Amino acid sequence: MQFPVPFSSDEQLIGIAEKYGTPLFVHDESAYERCGKEALAAPNAFGLSVRYAMKANSHRAVLRIFERLGIAIDASSIYEVERALAAGIAPEKIQLTSQEVQPAERLRELIAKGIQYNATSLEQLRIFAWLDCAKDTPISIRVNPGLGSGHNNRTNTAGRGASFGVWHSHLKEALKLIEENGLKIERLHTHVGSGSDWRVWQKAALLTLKIAAKMPDVKTVNMGGGYKIDRVRPEKSIDLQSAFKPVKKAFKDFARETGRKLRLEIEPGTYLAANSCILLARVEDICDTGPKGYEFLKINGSMTELLRPMIYGAHHPIRLLGRGEETEADYVVVGTTCESGDIFTPKEYDPEGIDTVSLPRAERGDIVAVLGAGAYGLSMSAKNYNTRPICAEVMIGKDGADRLITKRQKPEEIWARELD
Amino acid sequence: MQFPVPFSSDEQLIGIAEKYGTPLFVHDESAYERCGKEALAAPNAFGLSVRYAMKANSHRAVLRIFERLGIAIDASSIYEVERALAAGIAPEKIQLTSQEVQPAERLRELIAKGIQYNATSLEQLRIFAWLDCAKDTPISIRVNPGLGSGHNNRTNTAGRGASFGVWHSHLKEALKLIEENGLKIERLHTHVGSGSDWRVWQKAALLTLKIAAKMPDVKTVNMGGGYKIDRVRPEKSIDLQSAFKPVKKAFKDFARETGRKLRLEIEPGTYLAANSCILLARVEDICDTGPKGYEFLKINGSMTELLRPMIYGAHHPIRLLGRGEETEADYVVVGTTCESGDIFTPKEYDPEGIDTVSLPRAERGDIVAVLGAGAYGLSMSAKNYNTRPICAEVMIGKDGADRLITKRQKPEEIWARELD
Repeated sequence: MQFPVPFSSDEQLIGIAEKYGTPLFVHDESAYERCGKEALAAPNAFGLSVRYAMKANSHRAVLRIFERLGIAIDASSIYEVERALAAGIAPEKIQLTSQEVQPAERLRELIAKGIQYNATSLEQLRIFAWLDCAKDTPISIRVNPGLGSGHNNRTNTAGRGASFGVWHSHLKEALKLIEENGLKIERLHTHVGSGSDWRVWQKAALLTLKIAAKMPDVKTVNMGGGYKIDRVRPEKSIDLQSAFKPVKKAFKDFARETGRKLRLEIEPGTYLAANSCILLARVEDICDTGPKGYEFLKINGSMTELLRPMIYGAHHPIRLLGRGEETEADYVVVGTTCESGDIFTPKEYDPEGIDTVSLPRAERGDIVAVLGAGAYGLSMSAKNYNTRPICAEVMIGKDGADRLITKRQKPEEIWARELD
Repeated sequence: MQFPVPFSSDEQLIGIAEKYGTPLFVHDESAYERCGKEALAAPNAFGLSVRYAMKANSHRAVLRIFERLGIAIDASSIYEVERALAAGIAPEKIQLTSQEVQPAERLRELIAKGIQYNATSLEQLRIFAWLDCAKDTPISIRVNPGLGSGHNNRTNTAGRGASFGVWHSHLKEALKLIEENGLKIERLHTHVGSGSDWRVWQKAALLTLKIAAKMPDVKTVNMGGGYKIDRVRPEKSIDLQSAFKPVKKAFKDFARETGRKLRLEIEPGTYLAANSCILLARVEDICDTGPKGYEFLKINGSMTELLRPMIYGAHHPIRLLGRGEETEADYVVVGTTCESGDIFTPKEYDPEGIDTVSLPRAERGDIVAVLGAGAYGLSMSAKNYNTRPICAEVMIGKDGADRLITKRQKPEEIWARELD
């Protein structure tokens, strides 16, 4: 494992841990801004929009940082729409791309409010077509072009094993529906690509443009997310500049052939949020299973805060704060739920295996930082398992000052909705 | 997959889904009682206590059903202790077995209240030994005897790869600490066994008794949990009667050799809760990826309600309610979060693979029942992912009447603790 330096000094982070308690997520406004500006600078032929996939991290403070930069929002549920609105995001900046089918009434309300709609199935398209406002409301359609580039069903967002979007061979049916009802599909959404290889993004662009060719009203092509961030080997992360050069060329070629200058939209989640947030946890206990066994660092952060290592075997850089850089021990870092799989150092991509991380010698009470915890961290964690309260969150502002942005949940709030 | 009949009729469950909405957990009081009574009837030589591992499902109504049967509680965190107390469980019925180390002050408070303590590490034992009340407070100690029987690190609760309990080769150090401080260890806790094979339980008992032989004050031996429930093949579930016969014999042999008649304690979670609760969800959408692809049933239950299929590749029986028994289609059943891995029909024990389930032909709006969802269901789920509110829960009482036992979370409660 490599250990990129976190955005703040060990001393500042230790101070923050003391001030607010652990476990604690610490966000960095400047880091979010930096990532946002990088995304906004992706190569494009005829204009670029960036839409943040808010499911990665839906905190209002994070949404507002991106809004200030001119980044729009993709909401994956009706509840995310409500949450973004409550955070003060303008409705026309929010697009709903949901697996759930909204009843006609609700869809009408959303559209009346100005929410952008992305129909992800024939059924969603049918219900939209019934609405009186359908003809006058340009929408987006999500298509599954039949090719995925994730390495398994857990990261594949397209292809035969993915349920997202209208399957390409049903496109005819969709086009018929669109024509018969006079719908205006101004935006085409695919999410084929994944990873850091420019060839994948070129292929994804060509596939998507082939579909766009059949849809004359389409003005914007949304290529989804999946822009790889390797949290432990930054050099393997995507370089948007080189990955999107062939995409830009593909859009230019398309314009030459068809006369249509398509706007590019990208929808990053991880890219915008992953490295802008750290999980801080305290060393609760240190124990071992003998000379042929392992030494365990038990920290009070757990699968209740970060589930990715347990689900995917994902590696996150782990630092022991304030103990220097010299590595003296190989630790299995585990959480403190009563769950065997609650481990921060699984074998990479093999969560059933155990790995270790080399760290300075730790003592009880030391603070551990788990880096790269900003995307699919708290948002996707196994909250309240073992009745653990949802932890607090802190933002380090651009002036370097820290402020509480999420109050720690009180234990009694966990069972407050229970009745006898 | 097999489909055990749920504890209620299709008609009743469909009615309940209509009345309370979906997704919804439906519990059955009689089923909990039946499982509780089965556990209480496990063969034993000199008395048996059953302690419910409440992390499996911590709802107050569930805790109280077991309390009425005379089943005690094992709490895996200080928060579970508070939750059990809030549910009206007497402190002396609650044991704390935590991976977190309680500060001396807090531990003193707990003990003063009457909470039973199970020290799970040398550090926990040391801190306990410092307390004034230590000599007068009999406690338990958890030991890792160096053998686990789970099939990988995610289910192994003992052995070299598990951080739970004092490693057996450190037992000498623990015994020294106990002697020097005049501690009374009246209870020995191991959790070695797992599965349904009686040979595993015999081996676990012999290993545990070997340790008990070194601890003369021990009066009760707690063999932990791990009593296998196969949710789709009931015939592969543990039969406590046959599995604990050799355990009973081992305790009798031990008494003959040592003159010590040890009480047996077991600590089931899944055994008590798994099959007493069903997840109901509505079919939101049906789509497919062509003749060589899959047909997807998108249901409004998700990894936010039940994470086991996604984490473990766990199979749960799935029924389409009110459509008869004739299977007409093979569906991939998926949740409605925007997450590729959110699937209820993974390949068994291989969550990266896709499997299907044979069901009657489904229509939008149909109700799907996911059985065996009572243990590590809502308690371990990825709550609030995609900003989905925590769902409601209903109990079917012994009189057959249904009542709400958990109010559905309001979306705005999810972000209520957020600040700018």
